[in-house]
Amino acid sequence: MKRRLLLTALPGWGVLPMSLRSHAQATSFSALDVSHAERLRELALADGEAWRLVESLTTEVGARPAGSEADRRAAAWAMAAFGRLKLDAPRIEPMAVRVWQRGAAQARLTAPYPQPLVMAALGNSVAAPAAGIEAEVAYYADLKALTDDRTDHESRARGRIVFIDQATERTRDGRGYGRAVAMRFGGATEAAKRGAVAVAIRSVGTSSNRIAHTGAMGYELQVPRIPAFAVSTPDADLMARLQGRGAAVRMNFTLDAREGVEATTHNVIAEVRGGDLADEVVLISAHLDSWDIGQGAVDDGAGVAIVTAAAALIQRAGLKPRRTIRVVLFGNEENGFDGARAYGDRYGSVKHQLVGESDFGAGRIWRFNHRVAASALHLMAPIAKVLAPLGVAWADEGRNEGNPGPDAAVLMRRHRWPAVALTQDGTNYFDVHHTENDTLDKIDATTLPSNVASWAVVAWLAAQAPISF
Amino acid sequence: MKRRLLLTALPGWGVLPMSLRSHAQATSFSALDVSHAERLRELALADGEAWRLVESLTTEVGARPAGSEADRRAAAWAMAAFGRLKLDAPRIEPMAVRVWQRGAAQARLTAPYPQPLVMAALGNSVAAPAAGIEAEVAYYADLKALTDDRTDHESRARGRIVFIDQATERTRDGRGYGRAVAMRFGGATEAAKRGAVAVAIRSVGTSSNRIAHTGAMGYELQVPRIPAFAVSTPDADLMARLQGRGAAVRMNFTLDAREGVEATTHNVIAEVRGGDLADEVVLISAHLDSWDIGQGAVDDGAGVAIVTAAAALIQRAGLKPRRTIRVVLFGNEENGFDGARAYGDRYGSVKHQLVGESDFGAGRIWRFNHRVAASALHLMAPIAKVLAPLGVAWADEGRNEGNPGPDAAVLMRRHRWPAVALTQDGTNYFDVHHTENDTLDKIDATTLPSNVASWAVVAWLAAQAPISF
Repeated sequence: MKRRLLLTALPGWGVLPMSLRSHAQATSFSALDVSHAERLRELALADGEAWRLVESLTTEVGARPAGSEADRRAAAWAMAAFGRLKLDAPRIEPMAVRVWQRGAAQARLTAPYPQPLVMAALGNSVAAPAAGIEAEVAYYADLKALTDDRTDHESRARGRIVFIDQATERTRDGRGYGRAVAMRFGGATEAAKRGAVAVAIRSVGTSSNRIAHTGAMGYELQVPRIPAFAVSTPDADLMARLQGRGAAVRMNFTLDAREGVEATTHNVIAEVRGGDLADEVVLISAHLDSWDIGQGAVDDGAGVAIVTAAAALIQRAGLKPRRTIRVVLFGNEENGFDGARAYGDRYGSVKHQLVGESDFGAGRIWRFNHRVAASALHLMAPIAKVLAPLGVAWADEGRNEGNPGPDAAVLMRRHRWPAVALTQDGTNYFDVHHTENDTLDKIDATTLPSNVASWAVVAWLAAQAPISF
Repeated sequence: MKRRLLLTALPGWGVLPMSLRSHAQATSFSALDVSHAERLRELALADGEAWRLVESLTTEVGARPAGSEADRRAAAWAMAAFGRLKLDAPRIEPMAVRVWQRGAAQARLTAPYPQPLVMAALGNSVAAPAAGIEAEVAYYADLKALTDDRTDHESRARGRIVFIDQATERTRDGRGYGRAVAMRFGGATEAAKRGAVAVAIRSVGTSSNRIAHTGAMGYELQVPRIPAFAVSTPDADLMARLQGRGAAVRMNFTLDAREGVEATTHNVIAEVRGGDLADEVVLISAHLDSWDIGQGAVDDGAGVAIVTAAAALIQRAGLKPRRTIRVVLFGNEENGFDGARAYGDRYGSVKHQLVGESDFGAGRIWRFNHRVAASALHLMAPIAKVLAPLGVAWADEGRNEGNPGPDAAVLMRRHRWPAVALTQDGTNYFDVHHTENDTLDKIDATTLPSNVASWAVVAWLAAQAPISF
């Protein structure tokens, strides 16, 4: 997943559209609906489907960056899975995209002592000239130290490779990552404003493994576009130690990449068809694409498996929901949200009861919150009650400001669709996220059924709700 | 370190040379010598020198494969450290070696699905043809499955890339590694005997990180020499899963390397000069070289730091040992034991009271054992008594078969020199050993002083012993 920095502020949300209030006179879920939700929860806890799905996806497809051959195989894989699980209306919805493609890259220190570095180009980075770049390193302890630096010709960054050594704090909810990722996204621009020839950053991750962390970065118009890459945390530590010795540090690197390559990616969609309210959609989602350097296991093979297994469970249980439960596996979440935007373009006029996304790895869901109409808030307590035996706390604390995950948040903001967040334990997520280490063995198969249970419960009750969320 | 498989059997050791028995009439250590040992132990526990040394070596030199430019810098670094620590007779003793040099390499699966692999060539591997090799994979669960396979033209290995998927068990004393490493050293020969075109192995290590483990392998005369490399454990898991699906697995790889490159490496030596028995040597050692892909922190920067700090502590304490305490930092332990052999050639006729080596990372020493003359066995208990407060158990159990570490074991076997083993906790050692992950951050600075204390105690008491060990 790619976390956005701007999720917390959603201007105007307090003023809800009237359409979301139209059923305020209705009461709560029927006893039968709750009973079915409880049954789904117990069935899910005994279900191994999510593990089978993520094992299959990572083994048979592996890394699947948007627009690649593997991305196409992933879509075929998803269609086959939807078919096997007898979901309704399976389909691939293609879209044209321009994608970034990684080329060969390497970096090493050349002074004060030659030392190789483990690095990874950041997504969207421009290539360096073929001969590479060698320059002295300007060390900044964090992004603020860089933005605090002068921008005129006396900046330390001028003519140098800026290195930003900001550490990522380990947190359960990912806020440590959220704080550090601004360095990755905006570091190149801040460095270029000060005349730097390139930017290198400390990997945005919590692992001390010598594995670099990739992820999207961006450029600003009218600021020179300079190459950008991350070095592993032990290599960042090395540079900090050298910096501490006061000697001039020089770096040499090559970085090849292609930008704006025309390609096709896709959303892959299937449903549990609804009944009397079939035209209304309960959207549960994940993203099918992954970064290119891992196997896309925790990001987001786990999410693909969890929401697919949740829908499949409802279908297999023979329950007929009132609203349509739609599984959407978004395309190119990692580097552009193309899938979310294309979905919004296509389905923006369709009434959505709910959007939610599982894109925070395979850790256990520990928190339920939401962003729904005031008129539907009283329905959250009964949902929370069914989730509680799973160890999921209703921790909304009256804020009603849940973040439903990256693609779902794009849609929530753009279309003002109601949203739920089922927050997973991300304590270890940023040890492997966006790295070569994102492989199947990092998933604890025993946590998946509980997550499937939460999504099945929420999807089912949202589909049965007497009023709009 | 490179662990040898043949250490336990030492034919003829039971018949000790008479010279080792010549002082059997003497009694134990003097009370003053024991008091000094206890003082050294307490001084060491308050000493940060070992951390300073390993921090400096990994930061300023980094990876230092034998014969490389960094190896030369490492020797200069050691001389500077010896000088700063005021050790006696610092010297570089060069030797001509032929070394193996890693080139570029990559591997990927091409069937049943394209997937990249994280790999590392094994030391001494021949290069593959420049165009690379592509072949079907013949999967073997472990080395025994391969050696059990027929060798005629109907072997499954014939014309294929043999993959050996033997796991390495996590153990405190490294025996899990000892069992698995035969796959690395001899896998190519066993595969080639059966007509394989190359051999790939599961990394000999206990980590689930997507980082490959290198290390020495060998060839046999009259068996074709085929390229050999290791893949990371998650990649091995992937291949096992694909194998389980029954589909043909194909692999494509390139592997460049140079063998037999003429180069110079060196032992770097310093001493605490002895007194009345100055011609007798108490040898405490480590190896200065490292594999090329990490920073040589746990293997064996930690050992370099520990034994150097131990000798420096004795020197700084103003103690004058009877015998000469000699610190030897061996050259090319990792791929040939050239340093140990050159040392033996040069000093074989010098009486050695003891050889010992710190080459098992930075974990805490938990066991003391030895291989000494029967006439000196009664001196082991008083040594153990001084070590006991450090949490070091005298666990010899009457066997007197201690393994003093790889280079020291070469000398022990060849010259029948007495030996001690101060065994470190290696539970996590093979998570990072021989990988890119062997970096300074993997060392717990708080365990080093205790290890320095053990080596200082043993070196001091061996130097003061009333009789030969």
